[in-house]
Amino acid sequence: MDGMRETIRIVGIDPGLRRTGWGIVESLGNSLRFVASGTVKSDDKADLASRLCQLHDGLADVLHRHMPHEAAVEHTFVNKDASATLKLGQARGIAMLVPARAGLRVAEYAPNAVKKAVIGVGHGDKQQIHMMVKVLMPKATFQGDDAADALAIAICHAHHRQSAAYRIALAG
Amino acid sequence: MDGMRETIRIVGIDPGLRRTGWGIVESLGNSLRFVASGTVKSDDKADLASRLCQLHDGLADVLHRHMPHEAAVEHTFVNKDASATLKLGQARGIAMLVPARAGLRVAEYAPNAVKKAVIGVGHGDKQQIHMMVKVLMPKATFQGDDAADALAIAICHAHHRQSAAYRIALAG
Repeated sequence: MDGMRETIRIVGIDPGLRRTGWGIVESLGNSLRFVASGTVKSDDKADLASRLCQLHDGLADVLHRHMPHEAAVEHTFVNKDASATLKLGQARGIAMLVPARAGLRVAEYAPNAVKKAVIGVGHGDKQQIHMMVKVLMPKATFQGDDAADALAIAICHAHHRQSAAYRIALAG
Repeated sequence: MDGMRETIRIVGIDPGLRRTGWGIVESLGNSLRFVASGTVKSDDKADLASRLCQLHDGLADVLHRHMPHEAAVEHTFVNKDASATLKLGQARGIAMLVPARAGLRVAEYAPNAVKKAVIGVGHGDKQQIHMMVKVLMPKATFQGDDAADALAIAICHAHHRQSAAYRIALAG
């Protein structure tokens, strides 16, 4: 059971070309601790390549400052607007590349898995997610939806890796 | 007119998660010279984050070996399948990030602009594009559609930057 008692630091990332939210939590056994959260922004007057560099550099800086062990990125399912989907894909490519290049494993979770982990059911609005992030981690602070969603993604990963470790412990 | 007589080395990139084509050409005045072409592949059994790292490392290696001055990436317009669009977007994010981080300007061209530059009209099939790449650069070698398309994108950029330089020279 030793593996379950290690403190694991997780970065959750909610990718977007304009704003990419990030949230860092620590998971120890069943307890969760808030570490930090924020948003990396790109300048919408800059060209696309420069904006992707801004997201890259901002996320690389977050990883450098907070040294997480594992990463989780939301696997957003797609809206009707193909051009918006392409933009999101580009930002998401960067959001997955940066932790992977830093040697972190990168898990992906669909929005309903994130909701299920945080509010107990696979549906619910942003307000419910924010409220439950505060209930689960009373010391959490976040400005804006993207950072709150990123914390929810990190919490989702903490739950999933925990139950996976538990299954392995039972089988071992 | 000095600026127009410099040899400019251009990398064209045709992004895709499975295969990203690249092609390097040199442009001097109105003449084009083939330098190299190839394809960076990602392992479709690996997880997404690892595949994006493979594309990143492969493209970074191409830039390191061939030292282009400018980059051009196809701005593929989107098909109906949102999941395919998201995948393409992720690969395209990497294809734009790598040259931008290396300090290159990254131009974007829509497929019909590429066709117009290479075959003279905004429509036509892959075979016509490949044939015209060979007509414009008889020494060009390429294996597969992605490398040929990447060369066509580089040729498109050579034409566009050339006419832009010409306009600036006329105005100066």
